[in-house]
Amino acid sequence: MSGSLTFQVMKKDGAARRGRIVTKHGPIETPVFMPVGTQAAVKCMRPEQVKEMGAQIILSNTYHLYLRPGHELIREAGGLHRYMNWDRNILTDSGGFQVFSLGKLRKITEEGVSFQSHIDGSRHMLTPEKAVEIQTALGSDIMMAFDECAPYPADHAYIEDSMRRTCRWLERCKTAHHHTEEQALFGIMQGGMYKDLRKESAERISDLDLPGYSIGGLSVGEPKELMLDILDDCVDRLPAEKPRYLMGVGTPDYLFEGVERGIDMFDCVEPTRIARHGLAMTSHGRLNIKNARFERDFSPLDPECDCYACRHYSRAYIRHMFKAGEMMAAMLLTEHNLHFLITMMKNIRQAIEDERFLEYKKEFYAKYGGLDA
Amino acid sequence: MSGSLTFQVMKKDGAARRGRIVTKHGPIETPVFMPVGTQAAVKCMRPEQVKEMGAQIILSNTYHLYLRPGHELIREAGGLHRYMNWDRNILTDSGGFQVFSLGKLRKITEEGVSFQSHIDGSRHMLTPEKAVEIQTALGSDIMMAFDECAPYPADHAYIEDSMRRTCRWLERCKTAHHHTEEQALFGIMQGGMYKDLRKESAERISDLDLPGYSIGGLSVGEPKELMLDILDDCVDRLPAEKPRYLMGVGTPDYLFEGVERGIDMFDCVEPTRIARHGLAMTSHGRLNIKNARFERDFSPLDPECDCYACRHYSRAYIRHMFKAGEMMAAMLLTEHNLHFLITMMKNIRQAIEDERFLEYKKEFYAKYGGLDA
Repeated sequence: MSGSLTFQVMKKDGAARRGRIVTKHGPIETPVFMPVGTQAAVKCMRPEQVKEMGAQIILSNTYHLYLRPGHELIREAGGLHRYMNWDRNILTDSGGFQVFSLGKLRKITEEGVSFQSHIDGSRHMLTPEKAVEIQTALGSDIMMAFDECAPYPADHAYIEDSMRRTCRWLERCKTAHHHTEEQALFGIMQGGMYKDLRKESAERISDLDLPGYSIGGLSVGEPKELMLDILDDCVDRLPAEKPRYLMGVGTPDYLFEGVERGIDMFDCVEPTRIARHGLAMTSHGRLNIKNARFERDFSPLDPECDCYACRHYSRAYIRHMFKAGEMMAAMLLTEHNLHFLITMMKNIRQAIEDERFLEYKKEFYAKYGGLDA
Repeated sequence: MSGSLTFQVMKKDGAARRGRIVTKHGPIETPVFMPVGTQAAVKCMRPEQVKEMGAQIILSNTYHLYLRPGHELIREAGGLHRYMNWDRNILTDSGGFQVFSLGKLRKITEEGVSFQSHIDGSRHMLTPEKAVEIQTALGSDIMMAFDECAPYPADHAYIEDSMRRTCRWLERCKTAHHHTEEQALFGIMQGGMYKDLRKESAERISDLDLPGYSIGGLSVGEPKELMLDILDDCVDRLPAEKPRYLMGVGTPDYLFEGVERGIDMFDCVEPTRIARHGLAMTSHGRLNIKNARFERDFSPLDPECDCYACRHYSRAYIRHMFKAGEMMAAMLLTEHNLHFLITMMKNIRQAIEDERFLEYKKEFYAKYGGLDA
């Protein structure tokens, strides 16, 4: 079931873990932040540029690729790696998160979720079996189980029902997946903000002995304190010898908080999305390049950064690009933001190795300005 | 007046010339196609990528940079080269073409042209002196004289009046420019579709002994046969020992026709603009990536091309990127189109050296499908 995926924890500093995942597409040093390439491209970036900054894995989206261009087309193209010119690791989500986000356009049954395409209104059905079939065609190194990411707030009865269905769906995913040894199937813990349900979910999915587990249904609108409280309770319920992935988390503060509690993997559209809105992540907090005070500021986005954008361009130039509607603005800000997070994760890994994670966190927060949320 | 610009013709094949311009920013092998970076960026491209494909000079626009971000800001930034991270040659136009394109938003007098900004409606005046002042601040290697690019059709009296004013403006440009030895000022021949006026224009501007001359006011909507007839008459009226630049021309057929008549320099937004509309220039003619027949076509845009896009991506992938609204489509198509034209010009230069320009033209047209127009 684990295919060729291996995982080892080389070092611990408190609960923070310094590990390494290896698949046939190479190693993934953890803790890791995975850039998102929703539609088979990390927006505004050439894959070589994503590699150059050190990314060893990216995430791509089953829902989007299923609808357009279609998973069979990508299979014909030789799989997602070849199709999109990325020869390192790819994790695909299951499509669950997206179809549940469709609101009135979808309907949940025991069988799966029927929904209407956001592109052309056509009707489709995603089931555990279908999600595995699509991800098998894509040929990702890590595929995610089909789950319901329940909304916040939701009452205990709803979450209990939803979580148990997600557990049954996971069993069906495992059965559907048994023939694809080269792709690792990860299970997803749900249970909303209810610790008893989180516990039950963890126990049921751990029993399936999958090669990795993620925590879903957090960072869905709940207060930060509640999120961290649930996370505190969750992490140790997952098998210590397997990678732990906190889904949809990608601001610097949440990455630190997650690592501190023993999370190994993260993904988020945040760094690439905010780039297209003119926002840069810097060691001194967020910077809005649209701000008039950068009009004649000839310093780089972040004086402490050595990314391509910071080595070659001024805030004044990037601001001009943004105001003038040039794609170059999004290209440079995306490069910078991804480089910023990937470099931060590299520093976090080094800090764990040096047993000074909390010290590094404190130093980082002192400049960055504490929590974003 | 010529600053540090030198030009030599190393070889002739018929009227076609193989030459070299050298400025303090390095050599420019001619005949050359200059990619356009209107607002201080070649759209969707990093400068390093433009260099890698062999570009030795790009064009940038005075009108746009004057209005946004402003030439004084670019001067403060250390000049346009540094501002936009381009260390090879830059040619700037004079802004004339753009302000004359504004229609009702501009008014011509002997002094210059008053106009309203297309961005915010603010009022401005461009004069020969102002155009030189702006280009001096930008620090381009070649600056263009302020001229009127007259419309087509226009009667003899209008063109005569306009052409003579452009000649008087050129004298004022030369006077204003005398102190900027490092930047070469090029004069512009006008005269519409009237050979007597083209002759008069050529004589008057040649008398000023400038380091280079361009032909303006062609490719402005006139029939192709008329354009080529005027071009036939024009080229030899310009000094043979100076570079000759045909403004605003950039489709493969016009480039061949221009080179055949002794043109050394060309520019056009065509390859970068059509890229953003899903069009590729290929050795077998234009290709519209939106076409449904490319949906499952896993071959490259042009099987004879070795650009980044053709080495790594299929038509199917680029089509998906376009349909999905991913900037990657414009990035790959722009890369391809610029590479296509720059490689074509390299082959043209080699053909002239080998005294087989017309043969190469015939071979190219046989595959490409003849004239675009």
